[in-house]
Amino acid sequence: MSLLENPTAPPTGDFDSAAFYADLDEAKRAARVLATANSSAKDAALEAVAHELLAHVDEIVAANREDLARGRENGLSSGLLDRLTLTPERVQGVADAVLDIVGIADPVGESVRGRTLPNGVHLEEVRVPFGVVGAIYEARPNVTVDIAALALKSGNAAVLRGGSAAERTNAVLVAAIQAALGQAGLPAASVQTIDRFGRRGASELMRARGRVDLLVPRGSAQLIQTVVTESTVPVIETGAGVVHIVLDQSAREDWAVDIVRNAKVQRPSVCNAVETLLVHADAATRLLPPVLGALRAAGVTIHADERALAIFPDAVPATEEDWETEYMSLDLAVRVVDDLDEAIAHIRRYSTSHTESIITNDLGNADRFLAEVDSAVVMVNASTRFTDGAEFGFGAEVGISTQKLHARGPMGLPELTSTKWLVRGSGQIRR
Amino acid sequence: MSLLENPTAPPTGDFDSAAFYADLDEAKRAARVLATANSSAKDAALEAVAHELLAHVDEIVAANREDLARGRENGLSSGLLDRLTLTPERVQGVADAVLDIVGIADPVGESVRGRTLPNGVHLEEVRVPFGVVGAIYEARPNVTVDIAALALKSGNAAVLRGGSAAERTNAVLVAAIQAALGQAGLPAASVQTIDRFGRRGASELMRARGRVDLLVPRGSAQLIQTVVTESTVPVIETGAGVVHIVLDQSAREDWAVDIVRNAKVQRPSVCNAVETLLVHADAATRLLPPVLGALRAAGVTIHADERALAIFPDAVPATEEDWETEYMSLDLAVRVVDDLDEAIAHIRRYSTSHTESIITNDLGNADRFLAEVDSAVVMVNASTRFTDGAEFGFGAEVGISTQKLHARGPMGLPELTSTKWLVRGSGQIRR
Repeated sequence: MSLLENPTAPPTGDFDSAAFYADLDEAKRAARVLATANSSAKDAALEAVAHELLAHVDEIVAANREDLARGRENGLSSGLLDRLTLTPERVQGVADAVLDIVGIADPVGESVRGRTLPNGVHLEEVRVPFGVVGAIYEARPNVTVDIAALALKSGNAAVLRGGSAAERTNAVLVAAIQAALGQAGLPAASVQTIDRFGRRGASELMRARGRVDLLVPRGSAQLIQTVVTESTVPVIETGAGVVHIVLDQSAREDWAVDIVRNAKVQRPSVCNAVETLLVHADAATRLLPPVLGALRAAGVTIHADERALAIFPDAVPATEEDWETEYMSLDLAVRVVDDLDEAIAHIRRYSTSHTESIITNDLGNADRFLAEVDSAVVMVNASTRFTDGAEFGFGAEVGISTQKLHARGPMGLPELTSTKWLVRGSGQIRR
Repeated sequence: MSLLENPTAPPTGDFDSAAFYADLDEAKRAARVLATANSSAKDAALEAVAHELLAHVDEIVAANREDLARGRENGLSSGLLDRLTLTPERVQGVADAVLDIVGIADPVGESVRGRTLPNGVHLEEVRVPFGVVGAIYEARPNVTVDIAALALKSGNAAVLRGGSAAERTNAVLVAAIQAALGQAGLPAASVQTIDRFGRRGASELMRARGRVDLLVPRGSAQLIQTVVTESTVPVIETGAGVVHIVLDQSAREDWAVDIVRNAKVQRPSVCNAVETLLVHADAATRLLPPVLGALRAAGVTIHADERALAIFPDAVPATEEDWETEYMSLDLAVRVVDDLDEAIAHIRRYSTSHTESIITNDLGNADRFLAEVDSAVVMVNASTRFTDGAEFGFGAEVGISTQKLHARGPMGLPELTSTKWLVRGSGQIRR
């Protein structure tokens, strides 16, 4: 049986405000059920989701082919088309990721702190779900399942705007998830897509303060900027990474070579890959040839400032734009700085405050770097690739927060919760 | 010597964009100094602030008289004029409050969590200041000093928009604070007022994402709504309290009388005072006469629904508006409900999610109330007046957050901080 036999609304047309807000009301009601659902019930639903995805793999791949065909007609880039693609193997990977979430501790109900006041009143702050979590993203059908599963485990209803490019795929994925929710005895409205409401639906979602408790944008810098600027709903920004490594005067050569290569080459397309290398002038002649030589051998294009170019000529000249760029490719900007002050000033100007690392054997400089660099993750003598929820031991990765409110750095399931205070008394009044 | 001998700009005129953003840049530079200032330096500055306020009490009161005279001309309400007034005694109180903050633990540098990974990389999440904290408020000069002192202790620079009604008073207060900062060797720009930039300054402040790290609105529901709607800077909403108490069927009469009277009468003008009483139908005849009788004796006007009015006629009929109103006065709305479901449904519809309390001896109903009521603080058998930073043992009260992101319920100094991750390795790379 097709999961989409009875679509509840036409995929295009004028914005139906009543239907949109009725959907959000349904999400709120579902969120109330999820908030008090125990971990076993939520885990059973996740297992059912994985099962339904695999049971409907043909339908998912067929819907995805329609999206891909339309995407090619519309001239989507090969990178976007690749992210949009779901093969049977990728559906298996998505289902496996859902099962991984089953094994992670449920944050809901965790006691964060508590005390008994002198008058006998007991206070306890416990984790509770946000309620309704919205997500706005682009052309990434795996995010549909990923966010739905993370929201479900943390007791939140999810309202998803996955974008027109993946609309058919997302519709089938959400239908599979909703079928699984029904089997597990949880409300189907726990996970909804609002793609059928088009762009207007996305902008109404951003203004639905009070109905939507949290909004998570995922995708291009432009999409994140739009959501941050236009939302009245609280947003968690998972931003770009213009990540820096500083080679201090005292840096060990072997660590410098290993860490910079690992940070650039192991997976260049992700946000924790290094984009700019800053080298102390007194160490440039010693360190640049082995470090950049290893990178060139791995196929990295070096964008060097004048002083670095003089030491390592197998490079292209860097421009102002290079310092601002998140390459996400085998490219690295390199600059020689006079001292740690200049390195920190460069980072202040160009960093997106994601991750920065210094390679040094100078304790004072290490301490200064840790204290003065205002990024989510600041490292000494380690690869920037460690900024990752799985590496940090969180089990699941909701994203890397580059903002300061609520969550900073890798976010696990607890970051998808709020708290409330439970106060238990026996007739106490305030004196 | 007058603190305002050399005002740096005329108090009115066209918006000077360059001067405004230069001030924000100065705040950012000051924030960097404050971020690494130790507790002793910050406490010394707070002591100097208290000293300077008392040394300039005549000048403060004189400036305040000008604001009050203009306020009377402009027809400000007596409530607003009272909040605007600074007498020598009130200045003493404000200075004492600053000294209280000296005694509170500095949240900056606190280790929140940490672990050593199997590969030897050590992770530590520590509290760091936000950076630049903005505040937008109205006609409350005490908030100027209050926010400045809390920001200073937590290592944040403060940019204050205190509104035109208190502009002269705030200018003198900020000048006194800046003089104290100078004496203590901290940057004067750590605390600034942007009142001279007028309304345009306030709206630029709300859009200064990246330059301002956090915005705290304080004042009327309308002001808070404006800030929440128009800001791109992250906001912490310290909202209104339409606070409920539920008298369950099994409620003890003495607790019901004591708690409702305490919650309404002890200080009716604050956000944790009760505004609506919901009574189980089966207990209304037993409980309403003693509870409402005690309130009438204390001068409370009862706004009763039809069923409550039939039991306790010494009341005025309640209208729909009563359920939505934060009276902040000796008024209480009273409604008889059929059961706990109806009470919880009423709270969901009308509560501002600040604080709700149930008086009951039924364990199942207590647990349901704690689990199903989605407010910052949910109580059993205790007065709603306990929702307070000082009562919770936080030492200082930044406000009561009614939002779910970052902070919920009473906020202490730690809620004015973010965190960052310090990662210490010895050459580790990701495998």
